[in-house]
Amino acid sequence: MSGDVASRARELDAADPLGKYRDRFTLPDGVIYLDGNSLGALPRATPEAMRRVVEREWGEGLIRSWNDEASGGAGWFDMARRVGARIAPLIGAQPDEVVACDTVSVNLFKLISAALSHHRRAGDPQRKVVLSEPGNFPTDLYMIEGLERQGLAQRRLAGREDIEGALDEDVALLMLTHAHYKTGELFDMEALTRTAHDAGALVLWDLSHSVGALPVDLSAAKADFATGCGYKYLCGGPGAPAFAYVAERHHAELEQPLTGWFGHARPFAFSDDYEAAPGIEQLQCGTSPILGLTALDVGVGLIAEIGIERLCAKSQALSEFFLECLAAHGLDLDLVSPPDSASRGSQLSFRHNQAYAISQALIARGVIGDFRDPDILRLGFAPAYLAFRDIEAAATHVAEVLASGEWQDERFASRAAVT
Amino acid sequence: MSGDVASRARELDAADPLGKYRDRFTLPDGVIYLDGNSLGALPRATPEAMRRVVEREWGEGLIRSWNDEASGGAGWFDMARRVGARIAPLIGAQPDEVVACDTVSVNLFKLISAALSHHRRAGDPQRKVVLSEPGNFPTDLYMIEGLERQGLAQRRLAGREDIEGALDEDVALLMLTHAHYKTGELFDMEALTRTAHDAGALVLWDLSHSVGALPVDLSAAKADFATGCGYKYLCGGPGAPAFAYVAERHHAELEQPLTGWFGHARPFAFSDDYEAAPGIEQLQCGTSPILGLTALDVGVGLIAEIGIERLCAKSQALSEFFLECLAAHGLDLDLVSPPDSASRGSQLSFRHNQAYAISQALIARGVIGDFRDPDILRLGFAPAYLAFRDIEAAATHVAEVLASGEWQDERFASRAAVT
Repeated sequence: MSGDVASRARELDAADPLGKYRDRFTLPDGVIYLDGNSLGALPRATPEAMRRVVEREWGEGLIRSWNDEASGGAGWFDMARRVGARIAPLIGAQPDEVVACDTVSVNLFKLISAALSHHRRAGDPQRKVVLSEPGNFPTDLYMIEGLERQGLAQRRLAGREDIEGALDEDVALLMLTHAHYKTGELFDMEALTRTAHDAGALVLWDLSHSVGALPVDLSAAKADFATGCGYKYLCGGPGAPAFAYVAERHHAELEQPLTGWFGHARPFAFSDDYEAAPGIEQLQCGTSPILGLTALDVGVGLIAEIGIERLCAKSQALSEFFLECLAAHGLDLDLVSPPDSASRGSQLSFRHNQAYAISQALIARGVIGDFRDPDILRLGFAPAYLAFRDIEAAATHVAEVLASGEWQDERFASRAAVT
Repeated sequence: MSGDVASRARELDAADPLGKYRDRFTLPDGVIYLDGNSLGALPRATPEAMRRVVEREWGEGLIRSWNDEASGGAGWFDMARRVGARIAPLIGAQPDEVVACDTVSVNLFKLISAALSHHRRAGDPQRKVVLSEPGNFPTDLYMIEGLERQGLAQRRLAGREDIEGALDEDVALLMLTHAHYKTGELFDMEALTRTAHDAGALVLWDLSHSVGALPVDLSAAKADFATGCGYKYLCGGPGAPAFAYVAERHHAELEQPLTGWFGHARPFAFSDDYEAAPGIEQLQCGTSPILGLTALDVGVGLIAEIGIERLCAKSQALSEFFLECLAAHGLDLDLVSPPDSASRGSQLSFRHNQAYAISQALIARGVIGDFRDPDILRLGFAPAYLAFRDIEAAATHVAEVLASGEWQDERFASRAAVT
């Protein structure tokens, strides 16, 4: 049986139009990396880009690099918008609707605040509820709490089945994560956005677990706001800047409280009074993190070059093949992700009461997935750099770890590892 | 006369105990860099540190690098606190009172909010005024405005002479920049903090233009909050992470609204409800920017090695020598910085109605200072990597630019350059 899947892996790799892109990434020897959903792999072009920005633009250009190229600079000042514009087509946005800045958490704060402000200005100050689901990624829920403690928002959580019913006249914003971080389950972005709009609420999508792996069309869904992560499928490096999206129809009236100088209409006029820049750049706050943006730019460029449709198709094929390999090993694990690959992001999550120890035993074998509290083994199938032979080998390791009981070794018991 | 200052420069360089540190930085040929107060120069060790974090920690270690070294990681998870602890002795703080995170702007928002929350919880909700001075660095003033627009704060600006009188029973926070970005003028941190405390207000110091160049003692001054910039005298690179300081006595009751998952007591428990970490780490919000922190760590380490007292002494000597050189050239420019070097930061600013064109003409000669709207030529004397011979040469260039009138060339007229 496992011989069958090995030969099938060879066939699938031979026919894989994305196989050639594996060499555009650096992957360590002896590792099968199933955690690109947590930290994307290193693009091979990134070290050279970092050398350029550090040694040439910073070291040689110094302060001049903030200027645009026509003025002899490296264009740092516009970099947040430039990288945002490159992310835009990956999420169905216009180039002037996306900016790369801050973290997902900070961007959530800006965008939730913008939604609340929208309703205040529209004469609906009672709309203070931000509706999300329990078990959403923690930082999303926590950022609502921050505004709640200031008396500006109310957090309301409703399970997936109950969202429509919870959309009453107090809801300012429906805020959901497109692909669930733990299970990979997808929301129907277009349908839920319509439902929320019909109820008078705005909608904010967290694309952290979908951008770069799945087609997203914010324009078609008529989404109001979105944010997403730069260090997962976009391969922007650890703690990469995030991005923020605001539909153009909201730009003129947009108001958010993190009114730093990089969001000013004329930051170098150094006036005492804030005047928001007219476009998406008003979502910027402090000085752009140029080193992080440089690495993110490389990752975004590479993912865009490969193409989202092909990445999504391969991601689905990889996860389907993994389930096929498990079946070939006679394994029937408790899959908590949707069984239909079109209904989930680029990952498979399994519930197991020894999930932590198993994840550590797999890591000791070089199969890097992760554990999510309390009992989830999460395996990601970042399609840009994984081969079908990796998938077949990973399934074999899982089977061997479970059959041997090696996860019971005491070194896998303590929860010292943070990720 | 100019021959005298040239020989004096040689003497000063020969006697300079910090002269040897110049080689620890990379400086471009043909440039005299008088803008380290805007973007610090590149430490020679930074490129290798960036290669390590990019190629080894990210590329090879991948997600495992978040773990601590005992678990085979690179300690990324604690990096924000580790870098904060290295900054602490530069500003008279305890290691557990400083964390490196976000931008100055975002940290201002957290800390202003924390001050407002302090008074609300103390039963003084009428204390909503944040007092600052007109002409403070714009982002400081803008961040108050963001909270004002939310109805949470009131901005009040008072000139230096009027601050004490403006400290009434409505003032929640006195928020000032220790060294003025434009003139370099220093506030008496200890005296003003005492005055504000006596009036029942808390105090937040922006150290952006002092950290790494001047001795700062937040503990002695009994300051409540502080933040500062990583990319100026700390040489952390363009858009480096900033830092935030909260005096330990406030940690237990601290409340700030940017409650992201990295500030949670147990971020990897993934609970739905926020619980602030007990210490300074609750000032963190989103995922730490590891590439930026790595560069910042190198800069901070180098500045700490050289030593703040020596840096400050040399900075004063450099700026005094510059004035001496100008006098030797018979120049009497309109100095807007305090004439006494002990009363100013590491810079000299001159008012001139052609300041922009003069700054551009100097840049064309390789003397990089900057222009600040509307009429200020600002020259910085970052002491870690400047020699007295640079200062003498820069003064000669200033004299030649003014004598020749070359600043009148049309290519220096347009204000295309952003910095």
